[in-house]
Amino acid sequence: MIPLKNDTFIRALLKQPVDRTPIWMMRQAGRYLPEYRQVREQAGSFLNLCTNPELACEVTLQPLRRFNFDAAILFSDILTIPDAMGLGLYFTEGEGPKFKKTVCNAADVAQLPIPDPCTDLRYVVDAVRLIRKNLQGSVPLIGFSGSPWTLATYMVEGGSSKSFQKVKGLMYGQPAVMHLMLDKLAQSVAAYLNAQIEAGAQAVMLFDTWGGILSSEDYIEFSLYYAKQVRTLLKTQHDGQRIPTILFTKGGGLWLETMADAGYDALGLDWQTDLHHARARVGHQVALQGNMDPVALYAQPAVIVEKVKTVLEKYGSGPGHVFNLGHGILPDINPDHVKAMVDAVHQYSPAYHQ
Amino acid sequence: MIPLKNDTFIRALLKQPVDRTPIWMMRQAGRYLPEYRQVREQAGSFLNLCTNPELACEVTLQPLRRFNFDAAILFSDILTIPDAMGLGLYFTEGEGPKFKKTVCNAADVAQLPIPDPCTDLRYVVDAVRLIRKNLQGSVPLIGFSGSPWTLATYMVEGGSSKSFQKVKGLMYGQPAVMHLMLDKLAQSVAAYLNAQIEAGAQAVMLFDTWGGILSSEDYIEFSLYYAKQVRTLLKTQHDGQRIPTILFTKGGGLWLETMADAGYDALGLDWQTDLHHARARVGHQVALQGNMDPVALYAQPAVIVEKVKTVLEKYGSGPGHVFNLGHGILPDINPDHVKAMVDAVHQYSPAYHQ
Repeated sequence: MIPLKNDTFIRALLKQPVDRTPIWMMRQAGRYLPEYRQVREQAGSFLNLCTNPELACEVTLQPLRRFNFDAAILFSDILTIPDAMGLGLYFTEGEGPKFKKTVCNAADVAQLPIPDPCTDLRYVVDAVRLIRKNLQGSVPLIGFSGSPWTLATYMVEGGSSKSFQKVKGLMYGQPAVMHLMLDKLAQSVAAYLNAQIEAGAQAVMLFDTWGGILSSEDYIEFSLYYAKQVRTLLKTQHDGQRIPTILFTKGGGLWLETMADAGYDALGLDWQTDLHHARARVGHQVALQGNMDPVALYAQPAVIVEKVKTVLEKYGSGPGHVFNLGHGILPDINPDHVKAMVDAVHQYSPAYHQ
Repeated sequence: MIPLKNDTFIRALLKQPVDRTPIWMMRQAGRYLPEYRQVREQAGSFLNLCTNPELACEVTLQPLRRFNFDAAILFSDILTIPDAMGLGLYFTEGEGPKFKKTVCNAADVAQLPIPDPCTDLRYVVDAVRLIRKNLQGSVPLIGFSGSPWTLATYMVEGGSSKSFQKVKGLMYGQPAVMHLMLDKLAQSVAAYLNAQIEAGAQAVMLFDTWGGILSSEDYIEFSLYYAKQVRTLLKTQHDGQRIPTILFTKGGGLWLETMADAGYDALGLDWQTDLHHARARVGHQVALQGNMDPVALYAQPAVIVEKVKTVLEKYGSGPGHVFNLGHGILPDINPDHVKAMVDAVHQYSPAYHQ
């Protein structure tokens, strides 16, 4: 494999010294880019785009042609695993993801297979291989998966939810069934991420989008426990390189100490979490990724630059910070505003690494 | 005025010894009760119900006839103040509150009046007086208002929002305009709560439903600062009695220390915040109210009893705890499940007060 020309992102995750703070952006390959919308149109549907390795590769690379990002992230959906388990993922305009079949009881859980990523999710593995090849070592490629808990919420609810009544109903009413399901999901997620690593992913991130809807004790028992299990099963080396790992629980700012004990190299932070306090709490254990308010990108570039400076100042001097938004970029952001953010990180972050 | 027969709630807020943990429930007068739905039907619309003191009184008292709650809470909407400012509140089925006029710029803010509660919000003051009279000293009456920041979100967005793009746009782009608006709202909220106190409210609560969408620094500057200002302007005594105050920021668990410094007697906690940790962090300064997951009320009564025991155990022994949900009760909960929760608090809490 070609050695990395820019390993700033990997080094920051491992808390090694860097010249400047690396930056990438959640959903950086996405609807805010006109060139993405064009390919999405051409693909006919979001799922066609995800399942076509050439098109997935193309949209993964698009933001890197525009902006000085320090990492690429596989373009895919977080719900590929439940789809490969046979639940039938589909998308309706404006309503988000849905499943044809849902998981309601012990019998449903018993029937869930653990997908073989090399066959059942081959389109993802092929996309990773193709993206890695096309990157030609310019920046590292991030693989990812939804967390077991987050996948379970969609599988039980049949889609997005507001109150998460069904999945919490299963959790409160039949905790053993819920645990069995999460155990299967943890095995599936680990196999999936390991397949991405073998195909060329140089870091992996677990998206726990819905961990933050749980009480503290339920979070530890039903979400974090399985994130830890995934971590235990992950390959930590590939092709002679360390594969850093990132855990992101949206709404998880209260639980950083226990998250930092889960074995991941870095924690993703939402924008509500104070980066300075977060570093004081867990910075000795893990690197931190985040955490500008995604809505700040609607502001004028001069305001965006100030917000970037605040985030850099909050983390302070020394290694261990990856600049990112606190959640995915919103679909109607002006790409010029993204450029203002990226350029500001390049301009103002070296002072923190002298 | 008739002395209170049951002052457990007031005593708990002031961290005085009690025989058992008092309980009430956010949205306890609401859609989950068939008798509420009947009065709501009779009123013709939600707004008619809010603006009719007799009907508002009736639905306020309904849950107290069914359950052994230790407090009544005024039935009203959090958006009465912006409506009294002339924005034209209305409700559309399934879409929540909306305003005919929104606040977009400095000129709009300059035109906002500070409502006189005794004339512009007389229906609320009348409802408080009537409820207090009808309670006949059985339990204390809680008055409430939306927080300045939370009111501002609806006034700028024109209703509920997902990303809060407009209000954050104003906050980031024209912070001075935002501050002027929040200052007017703080004065209005304080006058409104003081009018409720004079009419008979024996405790008041500030609902900061949307403080949790802000970054830590924005929360302190744009939400908490004005909650403090409200507190400073509040009457702390009426009719020879202390009027305890409660501050509830949904999603505010990260900021409890700074919230505890805002001068309120108690903090409301959402269900994500660990009650044991919260007490360790701020229990020496304030009482704590909460925080069972509202979705747990869908579970079978035996499960609900276990959840109640967990919450009581998390707070532990001694005064300063008011049992509540971590957010409002959901509209399709079975009232029998509420009874299971209330009875469990009565049964299991005395052990923590010996």
